[in-house]
Amino acid sequence: MERSGFLSDILSRVAVRPVQALRGSPTPLPDLCANLVGELGEAAALSTALEILDRYDVLDGDGRMAFFQSLAQDLGHDDAVLQAAIADWTPGDEEAARRLHFAAEPRSQELIRRLNQVPGATARLVGMRADLLRCMRDATALAPLDMDFRHLFSSWFNRGFLEIRHIDWSTPAEVLEKIIAYEAVHEISGWDDLRRRVAEPDRRLFGFFHPAMPSEPLIFVEVALTRDIPGAITDILSADREAMDPGQAKTAVFYSISNCQKGLRGISFGSFLIKQVVSELQLELPNLRTFVTLSPIPGLRRWAEGEDSGLDAAEREALTSSEGPWGEQARKLAARFLTTARRAGGTVADPVAHFHLGNGAQLYGLHAGADPSERGMANSWGVMANYLYDEARIEARHQAYAAGGTIDVSSTVRGLAR
Amino acid sequence: MERSGFLSDILSRVAVRPVQALRGSPTPLPDLCANLVGELGEAAALSTALEILDRYDVLDGDGRMAFFQSLAQDLGHDDAVLQAAIADWTPGDEEAARRLHFAAEPRSQELIRRLNQVPGATARLVGMRADLLRCMRDATALAPLDMDFRHLFSSWFNRGFLEIRHIDWSTPAEVLEKIIAYEAVHEISGWDDLRRRVAEPDRRLFGFFHPAMPSEPLIFVEVALTRDIPGAITDILSADREAMDPGQAKTAVFYSISNCQKGLRGISFGSFLIKQVVSELQLELPNLRTFVTLSPIPGLRRWAEGEDSGLDAAEREALTSSEGPWGEQARKLAARFLTTARRAGGTVADPVAHFHLGNGAQLYGLHAGADPSERGMANSWGVMANYLYDEARIEARHQAYAAGGTIDVSSTVRGLAR
Amino acid sequence: MERSGFLSDILSRVAVRPVQALRGSPTPLPDLCANLVGELGEAAALSTALEILDRYDVLDGDGRMAFFQSLAQDLGHDDAVLQAAIADWTPGDEEAARRLHFAAEPRSQELIRRLNQVPGATARLVGMRADLLRCMRDATALAPLDMDFRHLFSSWFNRGFLEIRHIDWSTPAEVLEKIIAYEAVHEISGWDDLRRRVAEPDRRLFGFFHPAMPSEPLIFVEVALTRDIPGAITDILSADREAMDPGQAKTAVFYSISNCQKGLRGISFGSFLIKQVVSELQLELPNLRTFVTLSPIPGLRRWAEGEDSGLDAAEREALTSSEGPWGEQARKLAARFLTTARRAGGTVADPVAHFHLGNGAQLYGLHAGADPSERGMANSWGVMANYLYDEARIEARHQAYAAGGTIDVSSTVRGLAR
Amino acid sequence: MERSGFLSDILSRVAVRPVQALRGSPTPLPDLCANLVGELGEAAALSTALEILDRYDVLDGDGRMAFFQSLAQDLGHDDAVLQAAIADWTPGDEEAARRLHFAAEPRSQELIRRLNQVPGATARLVGMRADLLRCMRDATALAPLDMDFRHLFSSWFNRGFLEIRHIDWSTPAEVLEKIIAYEAVHEISGWDDLRRRVAEPDRRLFGFFHPAMPSEPLIFVEVALTRDIPGAITDILSADREAMDPGQAKTAVFYSISNCQKGLRGISFGSFLIKQVVSELQLELPNLRTFVTLSPIPGLRRWAEGEDSGLDAAEREALTSSEGPWGEQARKLAARFLTTARRAGGTVADPVAHFHLGNGAQLYGLHAGADPSERGMANSWGVMANYLYDEARIEARHQAYAAGGTIDVSSTVRGLAR
Repeated sequence: MERSGFLSDILSRVAVRPVQALRGSPTPLPDLCANLVGELGEAAALSTALEILDRYDVLDGDGRMAFFQSLAQDLGHDDAVLQAAIADWTPGDEEAARRLHFAAEPRSQELIRRLNQVPGATARLVGMRADLLRCMRDATALAPLDMDFRHLFSSWFNRGFLEIRHIDWSTPAEVLEKIIAYEAVHEISGWDDLRRRVAEPDRRLFGFFHPAMPSEPLIFVEVALTRDIPGAITDILSADREAMDPGQAKTAVFYSISNCQKGLRGISFGSFLIKQVVSELQLELPNLRTFVTLSPIPGLRRWAEGEDSGLDAAEREALTSSEGPWGEQARKLAARFLTTARRAGGTVADPVAHFHLGNGAQLYGLHAGADPSERGMANSWGVMANYLYDEARIEARHQAYAAGGTIDVSSTVRGLAR
Repeated sequence: MERSGFLSDILSRVAVRPVQALRGSPTPLPDLCANLVGELGEAAALSTALEILDRYDVLDGDGRMAFFQSLAQDLGHDDAVLQAAIADWTPGDEEAARRLHFAAEPRSQELIRRLNQVPGATARLVGMRADLLRCMRDATALAPLDMDFRHLFSSWFNRGFLEIRHIDWSTPAEVLEKIIAYEAVHEISGWDDLRRRVAEPDRRLFGFFHPAMPSEPLIFVEVALTRDIPGAITDILSADREAMDPGQAKTAVFYSISNCQKGLRGISFGSFLIKQVVSELQLELPNLRTFVTLSPIPGLRRWAEGEDSGLDAAEREALTSSEGPWGEQARKLAARFLTTARRAGGTVADPVAHFHLGNGAQLYGLHAGADPSERGMANSWGVMANYLYDEARIEARHQAYAAGGTIDVSSTVRGLAR
Repeated sequence: MERSGFLSDILSRVAVRPVQALRGSPTPLPDLCANLVGELGEAAALSTALEILDRYDVLDGDGRMAFFQSLAQDLGHDDAVLQAAIADWTPGDEEAARRLHFAAEPRSQELIRRLNQVPGATARLVGMRADLLRCMRDATALAPLDMDFRHLFSSWFNRGFLEIRHIDWSTPAEVLEKIIAYEAVHEISGWDDLRRRVAEPDRRLFGFFHPAMPSEPLIFVEVALTRDIPGAITDILSADREAMDPGQAKTAVFYSISNCQKGLRGISFGSFLIKQVVSELQLELPNLRTFVTLSPIPGLRRWAEGEDSGLDAAEREALTSSEGPWGEQARKLAARFLTTARRAGGTVADPVAHFHLGNGAQLYGLHAGADPSERGMANSWGVMANYLYDEARIEARHQAYAAGGTIDVSSTVRGLAR
Repeated sequence: MERSGFLSDILSRVAVRPVQALRGSPTPLPDLCANLVGELGEAAALSTALEILDRYDVLDGDGRMAFFQSLAQDLGHDDAVLQAAIADWTPGDEEAARRLHFAAEPRSQELIRRLNQVPGATARLVGMRADLLRCMRDATALAPLDMDFRHLFSSWFNRGFLEIRHIDWSTPAEVLEKIIAYEAVHEISGWDDLRRRVAEPDRRLFGFFHPAMPSEPLIFVEVALTRDIPGAITDILSADREAMDPGQAKTAVFYSISNCQKGLRGISFGSFLIKQVVSELQLELPNLRTFVTLSPIPGLRRWAEGEDSGLDAAEREALTSSEGPWGEQARKLAARFLTTARRAGGTVADPVAHFHLGNGAQLYGLHAGADPSERGMANSWGVMANYLYDEARIEARHQAYAAGGTIDVSSTVRGLAR
């Protein structure tokens, strides 16, 4: 009933016009944007929005910087309107507070909403924000504009609108090639490697998608089904290993989680995804008992080499040796790092640890020599961590961490940390 | 690849818990809502959101009124925060204006966003707003809360997120039965009548859908393919008529447009839908030359019987006769009504005329005896109107109407109006 | 990836040509058929096949009779070729036996295969055989031609090619309307009745489909999920009843099985369907314990009123009373009928009983007043039977019946039959 | 509505039993086959069929040879039955001829039909025949058994049951990897090469599929959209070339056709596929004017080096030179070969030429240096041919070739052949 390619058909037809229109169009891009947030009819609004997106696409870096700066300067709030709304408000007046809320809304928010009316625009706007984030490094005045994108994306990419998909070997190639491109933790070396990660009976890959970007994963997680909790990523990624019957597996290992869209920075999906995948796997494979990660410790080495690590002499010596700390020594360092190093606000220093502990996981195990890749050695001398997701205790652990930064640590790791 | 029923599976599993939880749960609903906009972890947030939705469902009318009132009172803005943000702002400071914007945002907006994280929640929230609109009739203090729903729905139901679907006889029954239920202009008397409207070769039905409400149409339009512009709805709806080869049709007649979701009041889709359907039909059937409506004139009779119609004696007499005005006389009245009667703001008084003229259509023709149904007679003595959509002039006509209320009227209708 | 409507698109395009060709075409239909089994190229073969099918469609009854007779006469085997193949064969020569097999193959088989090359032809050929079966009543010489259809259909509608589908309220209307039309046991009175049978949580409907006839069910079975074995069809079909939670059901009742395609007479799907539905339901609802039918006894009354029933005086009297036999008396008659009445070959006389007992079911229960419909009263004074499918004993019961006509009867029914 | 994975679910459940059954099963495979064509009930038949297929899968080469030989010996026709049927027949008796036809049918045909009742069996039977064809090289007595497979496959893979699919970058990886594996003419070197052939805007790939083998292509054709008729495969396959706008293309070049299933040898799909792809492309791209192949000439070199080529002295010398004939000389040799060399039956000697000329194409052009690959040089010193498909003349050309081997040759090639 639903004609696939319907919207894209329309897009391609509609798209023809502005390209022709372009030739004669001397209207500067900022003026087009001002028009679009003005009183255009819908037909004109659609073609104007499309023209803006198409012309944006062919801008170079400087052009994009100039585009964002014009938006930030010209499409903000209206001082007079805002002042009037402020004057109108008295404490406790909810209706006036709403009027104030809307009066303070920058016109750039409305611009983004109207650009999104073009079929297929959502992915283009996500890409636009990725550009904006790059530009912001050199132009902090763009930060308010970024707040607009982020605010709208939070609303549009609400959990309730996302679809989970099981990615496997029946998935279209156009999606799979993005999995290869977006894997951020343990690089996928090509289609054969990908096949091992999605098509083996004891491997799973799940991702979140948004209906307006159907071939673009937002985030995905890779899962290995195993008997025991694994101690090395090489066991999981090996090309030679024998696949196991998933009906015999006891453990689901989340060994890689990748955010795919730079333009969605700050919009968090990871915790939802992990919990939903736990639900999915429990339903499919009631034999699973343990849900655990095998995670990198990206901050370990930087910490150890820094001022505050308080290493003893033997440890300091190991740091400067060619191999670095290894075995028990490396695990002890990691245990100390993860259980003690904190950021200013009291959160755990290591970003991966912060993510999982914040989600309600327990710091469960540490393994030396677990990731011999260049990055693994550079970041943590190859040490990796297991974070354990125990459904019954997720909420309590989350609350404890959220309230006071209290983390749950297994006795093994506590022993190492001493 | 995409497992259909996936999310609903999860929903049903997740759904089991809160129902059990309900039994022991003494937490008042307003407190649950306050918790939800607070610091809950995601697992707890999801189950709390689901519990709120489930408990809302079983509330009676008074319960819902109380629920809305508690939201309106308790989950507004924070005076202190807002005052600080006002103090912080100076004209021209875009970043402070954004902070002010967010400071003025009522917590009820965030509540609605978090409720929406439950799979399937979007349709339930649309239903919740329909209830709210009913409650507002007796409680105008709920208006600010309605502004929150409307603001979020405008963003969520952005044109770029909608899917157009051609509804035909291969459409699932669960969607078709909603078409029957939602038809608001010319009632569909059952499945046989529906079949004539969607399965005959010279009939089309298109609707907009949102991906989060896949079996709920938002709006739909019914189209008849004909040789000439029709002058009576009875010709179109007749059960006996002979279908024509669509390849021979010259005219596409939009004879019914129905908004389906009371909870989406004020979020407008109609103009987009008509224009997209024009595009679809042009592509499928290049033989089509004319795109026109056959529309009711719901305001005619009320106007004629009112103070300002300025009828002459013969007309006044016709009004009180048993048959009312008919033939040429009725058409003349309709022409005068549609071309002269205005609302306070200068827009055309008849709501259907306002919709089409605002979209850039021309008032093209008038037909007496065109709708002999009870409603047609009651509203307009059976007179109907054609509004003509001429793609080349849509934008100019829209602009003229938007700018100064200028409407485009065919010479025929102008002649009648004299 | 698969473009739906692809083949039918082609069909419609291809279809245009022969219709034009028709006008100038004086070639008699039998000659076209002879050409088609001859040496045409594929393009010509396809358009010839399509022309034959299109011209067949507009033939009246006499025309079709003449068409079949010409096929039967002109497209049989070739005497000379067959005689040569016979002469060539000696006992034990497998290769010569194959040559003989193919030499004896009538050309009408090849004709049917080539007609089937037209997209969408399979359903048309099934319809053609339905016509042929009607014609055969008056023309037994057509029996050999029917053997060709039946032989090919047995091969084409092989179990391995069929798809089972769960028909529910998300099924396209074009399929559902056929369910209404094809229900052969307990008439579906319209869309509301259908909705109760497919959309209630404690009802299921499964059908077999062939990929070349995607919107045409071949056979379907209706299932009610209940706590206990039901004793009356009225309990199942009632519009007022309360649906039960399927997770609480203990029993799946097959209360209606309908063959849909007259043209597939003699190609049996029912046994496969029942067994597959048992598998499906066991997987979905492990709580189910009992799989049983509630079946009509179409042959009871005819048998009782016949010569061989051996009724006693009271029974004879009941037969001629206005109400017929009822209660215990009716059940006893039914028990005696089902356990004793046999056809010439030793199979059970009642066709429904023969079907289920042949499938390996047990005759489990009998209920008076179970089907008060006109047909139910006319056939069996309202008595209905339960046949029990016990997976562990299906094969043994099938074998016993197939080998010697031995049937398995519950002690209850045995008691009644005494 | 259609639950994907439904049948395979059942398969996996059903499949568990026979594997367990295997352990205790001493029944020899031939006896199981004899049972299967006997009087088993359907449940037992299904599990017996599955056991046969599963046990066949684990047989080694000798085991399979023995299996086929037992089928050929034990499951042929029945001499007594056949003799009776012969005795029963007199010339002109159509019904007796059918009985003879069925009496001569070997039981191995029925065995294959019953094996096919297992879900997913069709692909396994196609694989079984591929094995049989290998075994037949050493055991010509298996030829009758192969006739059974071929006869059934002709019926099952009837054109009317096949689906055409456009293979592109949205196609599942499990299908795409088979395209890579099955490409038989111009090897696909990996996923990047594949992507160029299916995802570039001026490339198309179409295949035929059977619904019972949904992820197994039967045959596929690769198409390049170009301005002019190309003279070298390297232009088409180059990784660097610039893609053209398909709306500007004038020519569709069929540059590779691959049969995928060894087990379907002798069942021809190519001609249907080419003609249907021509139809598809004409509909999608009305700008296309010319449909032509760029084809290898596999038989050229063998012919030239053979006895009957009648080369002159210069040509013979070229044959023995290191580079072989090239340029004009090579084209002339190819022209003479293709226009004069015939097989015993009068068909053109080169198999590719035979295929296209038999389909109604014209031998249109010849290009030297067109295929510098190892195989291209080994077979034809790199010469390639264009065969032109002109819809208006396809049938006439087919008929002329079918009737008397007359081929249509362009004036260019005729000039070269002189």
